[in-house]
Amino acid sequence: MEFSEHIKTANVEDVVLQQPLHPPSRGTLCITGHHLLFSHREVQDSSCQVLLLLRNIDAIEKSSVENLSGHLGLFTNVVNSKRPSGSSGTIIIKCKDLCVLQLDIPGMEQCLNIAQSIETLSCLDCVVDMYPFFYRPCDAILCDQWGLSNPEKHYTEMEELHERWRLSTVNRDYSVCVSYPAAVIVPKEISDDTLKKVAKFRQGGRFPVLCYYHRKNGMVIMRSGQPLTGANRKRCKEDERLLQAVIEDSDKGYIIDTRSAQQAQQARMTGGGFESKSCYNSWRRLHRHMERGKTLQESLIKLVEACADKSHNMDRWLSKLENSKWLSHVQTALSTAGLLVECLERDGHSVLIHDSEGIDSTLLISTLAQLIMDPSCRTLEGFLGLLEREFVQAGHPFQQRCAHSAFSHARLQQESPVFLLMLDCVWQIWRQFPLALGFSEVLLLRLATETYASNYGTFLCNSDMERRAAQVEDKTQCLFRALLKPREREQYTNPLYEHTELAIWPSVHPQSLQLWRGFFLRWTQQTRHLEEVQQEINNMVIESGKTALSF
Amino acid sequence: MEFSEHIKTANVEDVVLQQPLHPPSRGTLCITGHHLLFSHREVQDSSCQVLLLLRNIDAIEKSSVENLSGHLGLFTNVVNSKRPSGSSGTIIIKCKDLCVLQLDIPGMEQCLNIAQSIETLSCLDCVVDMYPFFYRPCDAILCDQWGLSNPEKHYTEMEELHERWRLSTVNRDYSVCVSYPAAVIVPKEISDDTLKKVAKFRQGGRFPVLCYYHRKNGMVIMRSGQPLTGANRKRCKEDERLLQAVIEDSDKGYIIDTRSAQQAQQARMTGGGFESKSCYNSWRRLHRHMERGKTLQESLIKLVEACADKSHNMDRWLSKLENSKWLSHVQTALSTAGLLVECLERDGHSVLIHDSEGIDSTLLISTLAQLIMDPSCRTLEGFLGLLEREFVQAGHPFQQRCAHSAFSHARLQQESPVFLLMLDCVWQIWRQFPLALGFSEVLLLRLATETYASNYGTFLCNSDMERRAAQVEDKTQCLFRALLKPREREQYTNPLYEHTELAIWPSVHPQSLQLWRGFFLRWTQQTRHLEEVQQEINNMVIESGKTALSF
Repeated sequence: MEFSEHIKTANVEDVVLQQPLHPPSRGTLCITGHHLLFSHREVQDSSCQVLLLLRNIDAIEKSSVENLSGHLGLFTNVVNSKRPSGSSGTIIIKCKDLCVLQLDIPGMEQCLNIAQSIETLSCLDCVVDMYPFFYRPCDAILCDQWGLSNPEKHYTEMEELHERWRLSTVNRDYSVCVSYPAAVIVPKEISDDTLKKVAKFRQGGRFPVLCYYHRKNGMVIMRSGQPLTGANRKRCKEDERLLQAVIEDSDKGYIIDTRSAQQAQQARMTGGGFESKSCYNSWRRLHRHMERGKTLQESLIKLVEACADKSHNMDRWLSKLENSKWLSHVQTALSTAGLLVECLERDGHSVLIHDSEGIDSTLLISTLAQLIMDPSCRTLEGFLGLLEREFVQAGHPFQQRCAHSAFSHARLQQESPVFLLMLDCVWQIWRQFPLALGFSEVLLLRLATETYASNYGTFLCNSDMERRAAQVEDKTQCLFRALLKPREREQYTNPLYEHTELAIWPSVHPQSLQLWRGFFLRWTQQTRHLEEVQQEINNMVIESGKTALSF
Repeated sequence: MEFSEHIKTANVEDVVLQQPLHPPSRGTLCITGHHLLFSHREVQDSSCQVLLLLRNIDAIEKSSVENLSGHLGLFTNVVNSKRPSGSSGTIIIKCKDLCVLQLDIPGMEQCLNIAQSIETLSCLDCVVDMYPFFYRPCDAILCDQWGLSNPEKHYTEMEELHERWRLSTVNRDYSVCVSYPAAVIVPKEISDDTLKKVAKFRQGGRFPVLCYYHRKNGMVIMRSGQPLTGANRKRCKEDERLLQAVIEDSDKGYIIDTRSAQQAQQARMTGGGFESKSCYNSWRRLHRHMERGKTLQESLIKLVEACADKSHNMDRWLSKLENSKWLSHVQTALSTAGLLVECLERDGHSVLIHDSEGIDSTLLISTLAQLIMDPSCRTLEGFLGLLEREFVQAGHPFQQRCAHSAFSHARLQQESPVFLLMLDCVWQIWRQFPLALGFSEVLLLRLATETYASNYGTFLCNSDMERRAAQVEDKTQCLFRALLKPREREQYTNPLYEHTELAIWPSVHPQSLQLWRGFFLRWTQQTRHLEEVQQEINNMVIESGKTALSF
């Protein structure tokens, strides 16, 4: 793709930039295929430039100010209409990381050209046109290993698994399940042929696979798509056998279905369904209704609107916060994860978790449950590894879910802030157990930003298959590896971290859950003050030599 | 008073105590004139005893459990009715610091006796019967100076004042104003005779006095009661002259009335009023409606109820939080204080602040304004000194306002959590500027507790006059002095404190204000985790030798 086609005006002088927490400043605006670059007039060193990834732009609003009359009116949609050159235009840029910027651009035509370039270049559809394929940091070595681990390596390292579990490469060409990685862990006695049959019985081909092995008691978390029982209550002997193999003869297991019982029933009408008691008699099914998809996206939009409300009305704010339902979603996610941990750690039984597709709330819950139970997931590396396994490799469709954040007026397609909700839940845990997680809020904020717009290839595409096709591993940089580089990791480490073997049970009382101000109000002054404190604590820790301990 | 009259049962064995954050424990309960003492059966060292000041008990609920039937019923009010000795009783103790305890007491009669003793001894009316008059800590020296300062000393130290202001002892025998201290600061040219006349024109005799001098621009905060203009728009030349003397000829001033204009108008019907423009033409009046009295108390009760709600319903919690209006009161207080600072520091004019009586919201606002403006009020000593001047000496009626907190079913008389609201506002400032205050949240929590029930005499009585009559200074210990003792002060110091000369303007956006969880949810697990963090930070600071700096 020739980006230059879409850039009619590449440079504008005398632009005024207004951004949160800074006084307005005047300088030169430059647009490239992937960036807006603003250089302050006074200061010329690069630290005083503002570099904005176009992909980070969720929506823009244009308005014109005619210099003579001072009249402020919205552009009509005739973008190319010529106006007197004396007038100027304003572009309000709403970013996916919730930052809102304003550009005052002299010359209407230039303003319109810039706006049009932004509109086109900020939502490129083709993945290989995206910036990660062009990003070459000066310290990059492309032959670096990509990613932190992979299913093969993970399996090899988990020796406890080898007796009863095997690594299957039945999906090596992605023909069995488009959203699974090439290798998955399954019960040893289940053959690849059986898996192929089970895949046909599970939505999206997502047959039950192991995602977590609990060393303390040998129990596991499995995840899958819903069984395609349909209206006729179809059965699949292979599926039943697979699940039986998970728990062995004497034991029983839990199925956590993140839909209500009614929703699961209704799913049968469209070919989906649930594991009936009669066919899966060793498994006990628990339903927990979790919102997903559009509902979750609308909740995010409402919350961000509430946060931007400038009225000084406390009642209105609290009632908007309530209406957004975001905190209810946080609560439900944490309590469902808690339920899973109870089944697995307290009751000592294996758990299968799924919703319909098995690529959203399923992954959210299995991630949170592992964080709650397993100390090895609570270090910086451990947590990034968890995200890599449970979201990236497990096939969360990042490209679809994170195409837009809270500002876009585009008709919602497949957007849904599942990953952001997960990060919010992790933040709640971090806040409740400030010593138990090895990473800091800064990491969660960085991840929240990177999922929507990134220099790195980690969150590109919707599955391993798509990443393979686009050669993401060969042609882009890996975010997780970058975050672990010595200089970077310093800022993402929790200086107060103390290892604990215990499960960290988050309180899910509504009183215990809070708005994640660090994210949702990050562009306000007070968040900056909290950052100062964090910095101060970090400095002290470094001084007192405690840093060595936490690495 | 003979406390023993009220103690029919002094000791009960085999009592089970249930308190938040601890497993239930069995031991011996002992009641004295001022305390409940519970000694755990297993551990005998004194650190494992629970010592509860009876004054801290806001309400109790009794219920009986008959051992045979297991029936749980509320006691009828026939307290002395004999019941089978095999039954046992339960007392739920709701403390003013919001802690809720439960005692399971074998033997109904004993239970009833204990309950009756608590009911009588927890709300003694006579101040000299209260515990501060009996408290003798082992390190106490009664000849210690009482309090941190006094008006005389304060005046002497403020040399800038001496040219235009004088110390008047017109109130030395409290005959001019019962709620003022013996000495107050007034304009030099205003004679004591004039003050006496002005006192007759101001509610409660509270003629305008200086409470703060802003070194940066020489402007002052005055406070007073409302002028008693009444329905006939009575004038008082002396009052007008006093206020004119405050601002001198060329200048103007602001009057901040913490009632709405309508309320101020209505006050005229009952003899009160406001400063009319025609009579006080150098003064500009601003009205800001602040809730007080019963409304504030009910708001606290609703908030505490909401916090105790055990349902797991997020919407219900947020809507109860909203309905309590507590955060709205916090917002109004902070924004009114901000208004005062704007008038004084930004606009450079002196301010007179009052409501009707001048002993509640008036003091709240002048305290917050000083904290915002003046770095010397932001150290540990400075803050305690500010509270001493602006609440204790200025005549906030602690005994009336803090007789009960949120649990009592007694008919509300004069209770109102003005001081607690002030502490909450200070906490909001502390959270927004975590480096700017020299004291910690722990101090605010301690103060919140001490105002309602204390070993110390600082918050006894309603005025200097009453304290003098009860010989509080001779016969009790001073809390503020105790807090500043080396070992105590350590825990009340903010380890991250960095002095700043600037005013710290709190954001009053509803999004910026939060529930003070440390206080309102202090008896829950998560608050404990936050305390761990604080401890960890303190330790590090001590290690890194920064402590020396912050003292």
